[in-house]
Amino acid sequence: IERWANTAIIGFTHLQPAEPTTLGYRLAQYGFDLLTDLTELRRVRDGIRGKGFKGAVGTSASYGELLSASIAAPDAAEPQQQWSAAQLEQAVMSAIGLEPFPVATQTYPRKQDWLVVNALAGLAGSLHKFAFDLRLLQAPSLGELAEPFGAKQVGSSAMPFKRNPINAENIDSLARFVATLPRVTWDNAANSLLERTLDDSANRREVLPAAFLAADEILRRANRLIRDLRVDEEAMARNLEKYGTFAATERVLMSAVKQGANRQEMHEVIREHSLAAWAEIAQGHANPLPVRLFNDDRVTRYLTLAQITYLLDASHYVGDAPERAIKMARQIRAQLGEPL
Amino acid sequence: IERWANTAIIGFTHLQPAEPTTLGYRLAQYGFDLLTDLTELRRVRDGIRGKGFKGAVGTSASYGELLSASIAAPDAAEPQQQWSAAQLEQAVMSAIGLEPFPVATQTYPRKQDWLVVNALAGLAGSLHKFAFDLRLLQAPSLGELAEPFGAKQVGSSAMPFKRNPINAENIDSLARFVATLPRVTWDNAANSLLERTLDDSANRREVLPAAFLAADEILRRANRLIRDLRVDEEAMARNLEKYGTFAATERVLMSAVKQGANRQEMHEVIREHSLAAWAEIAQGHANPLPVRLFNDDRVTRYLTLAQITYLLDASHYVGDAPERAIKMARQIRAQLGEPL
Amino acid sequence: IERWANTAIIGFTHLQPAEPTTLGYRLAQYGFDLLTDLTELRRVRDGIRGKGFKGAVGTSASYGELLSASIAAPDAAEPQQQWSAAQLEQAVMSAIGLEPFPVATQTYPRKQDWLVVNALAGLAGSLHKFAFDLRLLQAPSLGELAEPFGAKQVGSSAMPFKRNPINAENIDSLARFVATLPRVTWDNAANSLLERTLDDSANRREVLPAAFLAADEILRRANRLIRDLRVDEEAMARNLEKYGTFAATERVLMSAVKQGANRQEMHEVIREHSLAAWAEIAQGHANPLPVRLFNDDRVTRYLTLAQITYLLDASHYVGDAPERAIKMARQIRAQLGEPL
Amino acid sequence: IERWANTAIIGFTHLQPAEPTTLGYRLAQYGFDLLTDLTELRRVRDGIRGKGFKGAVGTSASYGELLSASIAAPDAAEPQQQWSAAQLEQAVMSAIGLEPFPVATQTYPRKQDWLVVNALAGLAGSLHKFAFDLRLLQAPSLGELAEPFGAKQVGSSAMPFKRNPINAENIDSLARFVATLPRVTWDNAANSLLERTLDDSANRREVLPAAFLAADEILRRANRLIRDLRVDEEAMARNLEKYGTFAATERVLMSAVKQGANRQEMHEVIREHSLAAWAEIAQGHANPLPVRLFNDDRVTRYLTLAQITYLLDASHYVGDAPERAIKMARQIRAQLGEPL
Repeated sequence: IERWANTAIIGFTHLQPAEPTTLGYRLAQYGFDLLTDLTELRRVRDGIRGKGFKGAVGTSASYGELLSASIAAPDAAEPQQQWSAAQLEQAVMSAIGLEPFPVATQTYPRKQDWLVVNALAGLAGSLHKFAFDLRLLQAPSLGELAEPFGAKQVGSSAMPFKRNPINAENIDSLARFVATLPRVTWDNAANSLLERTLDDSANRREVLPAAFLAADEILRRANRLIRDLRVDEEAMARNLEKYGTFAATERVLMSAVKQGANRQEMHEVIREHSLAAWAEIAQGHANPLPVRLFNDDRVTRYLTLAQITYLLDASHYVGDAPERAIKMARQIRAQLGEPL
Repeated sequence: IERWANTAIIGFTHLQPAEPTTLGYRLAQYGFDLLTDLTELRRVRDGIRGKGFKGAVGTSASYGELLSASIAAPDAAEPQQQWSAAQLEQAVMSAIGLEPFPVATQTYPRKQDWLVVNALAGLAGSLHKFAFDLRLLQAPSLGELAEPFGAKQVGSSAMPFKRNPINAENIDSLARFVATLPRVTWDNAANSLLERTLDDSANRREVLPAAFLAADEILRRANRLIRDLRVDEEAMARNLEKYGTFAATERVLMSAVKQGANRQEMHEVIREHSLAAWAEIAQGHANPLPVRLFNDDRVTRYLTLAQITYLLDASHYVGDAPERAIKMARQIRAQLGEPL
Repeated sequence: IERWANTAIIGFTHLQPAEPTTLGYRLAQYGFDLLTDLTELRRVRDGIRGKGFKGAVGTSASYGELLSASIAAPDAAEPQQQWSAAQLEQAVMSAIGLEPFPVATQTYPRKQDWLVVNALAGLAGSLHKFAFDLRLLQAPSLGELAEPFGAKQVGSSAMPFKRNPINAENIDSLARFVATLPRVTWDNAANSLLERTLDDSANRREVLPAAFLAADEILRRANRLIRDLRVDEEAMARNLEKYGTFAATERVLMSAVKQGANRQEMHEVIREHSLAAWAEIAQGHANPLPVRLFNDDRVTRYLTLAQITYLLDASHYVGDAPERAIKMARQIRAQLGEPL
Repeated sequence: IERWANTAIIGFTHLQPAEPTTLGYRLAQYGFDLLTDLTELRRVRDGIRGKGFKGAVGTSASYGELLSASIAAPDAAEPQQQWSAAQLEQAVMSAIGLEPFPVATQTYPRKQDWLVVNALAGLAGSLHKFAFDLRLLQAPSLGELAEPFGAKQVGSSAMPFKRNPINAENIDSLARFVATLPRVTWDNAANSLLERTLDDSANRREVLPAAFLAADEILRRANRLIRDLRVDEEAMARNLEKYGTFAATERVLMSAVKQGANRQEMHEVIREHSLAAWAEIAQGHANPLPVRLFNDDRVTRYLTLAQITYLLDASHYVGDAPERAIKMARQIRAQLGEPL
């Protein structure tokens, strides 16, 4: 994030070029989502409890009897016990290092499974978005980012631009699977009738390991992708110049108006040049927009060439994206500094 | 919970009578699940943020320009601003009383919707279980609990036992619907590509209100059910006597063995009487198990009639269920004491 | 179905006793659902096609070239081919015995996976209902049906009524899992972009085998349950007498009115006896309703004792359930007679 | 489909340019998916049945009584009826024009709802894919297809390339919602216990209309998109030239080898030129690959300039895509010719 905080790129909304942003700021969005996931995962992990030792319906009744020295009987004031069932539970669970649930039936509340699988699904969702964005940006028509590929992986020899984003596709595929699993755990929690029914058991053996294994594989691949992500700065600059210049005409308009231009007229002037310029770009020519504005005295009456050039440079039009990106990077570092 | 903490009932596992527990302890399980939901809902609510004011791709670029007094230009050292875009955002958002996201694109991260709808689905799941249990216990074959019904609602005149648990069925129906909605919000979060795509908008208008409205209706009905729940203590005692006595033979066994009986032999004796007793009950007779044991000197050799009577009374065989129930009730009160 | 077509049982709506039906008719409902599944499964199976041989984007372009004897060139009238690509495909696919899709991209349309997994989920749903009903009826408070259990499986020795329906619970558990899998295949079909993206591959390896394996296990267990299902006719008769007599008062009312009784008055008479009778039953006594009616001359004025007895016998009040059940059984046999 | 059956375009796999195909063939894929949906929808529609008239638990018992002229009594040989309940049902249902289910409980089997909503979800899935492809192709970096937009909708004046695919996004959004609804109907079918429970009612009122309304809106928008779809043939040709030429080098290789070239050496020659050519394209230059091959006598030794030109023209490299597209179009017309 920090390394690319100032690298201006063209932002996309609706998969259409919109206004400039910076690569670092885009990465910061992924970072923020993952930070949310991390917080959820830590919270869920720290809240995990064991059922404890409470017997067949959670009352500890038989433990109480077993721990009692003498026969429970109506005449016995109170059966003397060295240990209560609750004390036994506390002792064993603290040896295991797991907090027991304060109440339970034959099993612990299955809501816990749901919270765990949900947290994994959240993580899968964040990486699904990251991987999908990567797949779009790796298309040669944009070509800004690419999955790492080994020296041997020469790609298709005849089609040098072809680099299939197979890791990102794999992440999206598994994420989609993980996203369906919380529903099973919800069903288990919502349908465990009275002191428990056994209709959770068979699917838990499938769903719980599957959720962890798939999340693990997603993380493993995402980690590799992020570590060795190929960033093509030339392609970024090219796309920014191609699309961002148009976005930057908004600045030319605002500045010219501040210098006294009529907003309505100036808007029309810029629109006319934009349409013509795009027609040329669409045919594969270089972006003629700056030159067109330089040569129109309806524009130069208000702005110098240097001003126009500066204003059209979309890489300056990124607002506070760099600062926000860097701030987010620091926040993430702070969170990761904590012992996980 | 507190009122029924000591009311012994027969607990069910696999929908089969198991060991005794108490009504208050069973209610405490619902209470604990709902407490978890409350914690989740509060946490999610407190974490809700607004997008803030960050413009079309989240960079605040145009706000920065608009706030600038003079033309942004290469020769200007730094455009003088009275306010930065971030300061403006902070001012407006604090007037609204909503924290802004530190980073955003054209929209706030859709993961927030997912967290919100998940919390609602969690609530729906807890009440699904409660309502399903109620439906089972309201069946006249058990008849322990029943939905409230008004004076006018006489039920079927010819079938006086027939009381359809329509509120509980309604809760289960809606809960099942709410349980599918998180998936839509996951999709929205995981597929909002680059600086946003608009493929979230149409379904959000359906899903977000539907989740809140359904959860609200579930709560409204559950509230009514719980407030005026009809508890049939006679039926509870009847069921406990019918099934619990058998569970309590475990205590007779343990006590007789403590008094010197041979475990193997005593086990066989009890088994024989249990089988015979159940056969009679199944034909509609009263439970003959206590009398059978009283009359068998293989048993009375070790235990007095008073001891057998005490041990067979399943209502004493509830372990620390009452204490745990009361403790949970106090914990819930403590949580609700906080301003919601 | 046929064996039990005439065995009257009490039917339940809202988990409350309603009117009588027959065991065979209830089984016929399961049969009808399963017949629907069978039809779907057969239809989907018969419609399965292979991609065929169509190359990297489905155009067969390279096959065309390879099959061409000479250089494709502008001056060649038409490259002479012994075989067209389509002929090659037809030859190979008919050797495999699989119809090829008429059009395809790099893969066959993923909608096919969705149809297959849906058909499996439908089967799982029908058996989920069957298994859940069995779990309810196996509860000792009803005790009408039970899972088979081996000679060794003595159940809990002290609790002779306790027979956990573990196979039925297992079926419900797996069914719930299978029910979530169609969504993954929908995603694969709906998101396979342009001539294919690889975001289906990883989860298909998980989902397709899981769906078949779980459906297979569900079938295996259901098969065993159905083959050796334990039917307790005594319990059925007991429950029918207990609840069905009340339902049958509707017939007494209708018949008395036909004999000239005032509908309003007779309704009140019956209601009064019903309430009193249920109060006794609830305390464990035998059903006193018939005797109460015999002794009330407001009733006997219109109907003889024999008529009342006949009318109150709920086992005659099953309408055309037996015929419909037998007809359904024949329909199922007819379908299964076809080569599967 | 037919109009564009011969219009060569570059096909994409993994969102990466692959081999050429034709626009008509791509459309034929959508057509085939929709044809499958149509078949499913028609089949489900034709199979829809009503519950019929079968009373509270499906036995028609009370209808039978009501239709009987005299008192049902033990001495009556057979109660004389003018009509049987089944005859009444048949008469009424045929007046309604709906086949009754052969067996039913208090309701018709809820599996029918599941089949209906599934068919709608299938339709939504096919249009999801179509709409997503459109969103990708409408990105100005490809620019091959675009949503229609009215005369007034000038798009962003300053960014003439910006045309947000809002209808396609809307379709994808709603489709994602429809895709979750089958699960609710599955639950209703799988959990309608014994002769029916009412836990389906509340959510059916939400889910069934929502599924139809959303599917209808999806169809309405898709219909508009398809009718007035903007096809940019220039952009298609440009992209084909840019990427397809590389794919076509495979043909140059095959032909040169047929003329005696060494496969290994020729492969290396082509690879070298491809890499160099792509580097130039990436910098915005025209595709220099043909010229590079013309000037290399390692190539021209085997192939004439006319042959190379012909072979490199990817628009000839579409195999039997045109024929298959036209055949599919005919098949669709045939299906639609049937009265819907």
